[in-house]
Amino acid sequence: MRLTNFSDYALRILMYAAVVPDGRLITIEETAEAYDISKAHLMKVANQLTRAGYMKAVRGRSGGLTLAKRPERIRLSDVLRATEPDFALVECMTADNRCMISPRCRLRGALNEALAAFLETLDGYTLADLIISPKDSATRPLLAIGARRA
Amino acid sequence: MRLTNFSDYALRILMYAAVVPDGRLITIEETAEAYDISKAHLMKVANQLTRAGYMKAVRGRSGGLTLAKRPERIRLSDVLRATEPDFALVECMTADNRCMISPRCRLRGALNEALAAFLETLDGYTLADLIISPKDSATRPLLAIGARRA
Repeated sequence: MRLTNFSDYALRILMYAAVVPDGRLITIEETAEAYDISKAHLMKVANQLTRAGYMKAVRGRSGGLTLAKRPERIRLSDVLRATEPDFALVECMTADNRCMISPRCRLRGALNEALAAFLETLDGYTLADLIISPKDSATRPLLAIGARRA
Repeated sequence: MRLTNFSDYALRILMYAAVVPDGRLITIEETAEAYDISKAHLMKVANQLTRAGYMKAVRGRSGGLTLAKRPERIRLSDVLRATEPDFALVECMTADNRCMISPRCRLRGALNEALAAFLETLDGYTLADLIISPKDSATRPLLAIGARRA
């Protein structure tokens, strides 16, 4: 069972934007370099996060990206809802379902209940829970990058 | 977020084996035909379910497959644990993780808690809950196939 890389990268760029000192703007370039991931892919992720209201872009020569909400207002479940293409765990939960027993099969109900439990757990976590404070040891590796570039 | 087709097909073959009348043996051929899915893929799934102790194979000219346990002893969570290659939702939960913040990042903990809630929900469901009884309307489409071939 996997989330898409798209969601993985979305959570990473949000964490990065949350820990840079003094709310300075971040760039796709530095974030891609920090995580050693594809810049093109990360650009698409950032666009989606901007459309969904989690990041905002500042244009211009010294422009960049920043969080559009405070970290404690960004729930992990909502980020995943905005970045996963779907939560269709098995074929009968997709639009192109061809399984002949699906009209009355109970599997989908059980999986939907499990999925709800998954997302409810993540309703209880925000971006702030992942990063807490710039002084927190969990974010030191990221902060080291942010500080180097500040 | 998706489960693999492997798990999807595993649940389908178990449901099929559970509803055929009088516990007769099923074949890969008829199951693949019933669901209109790949026979080769289903064969691998059946082998894994046999290795994991959920199905047993009877050899010979009139051989086939049957459940190795009663449906109420087969928990959905355990089937998924036996068929999913892993539950590595994001890169830092995989063996080839390269994310530089993972040693101290809290994301993994949140996702593991959500995953536990997902699987705990499915601990509460067995194969018997999906099929209930041969008289149950939910399994009629499958039973129609089983009866036709009995």
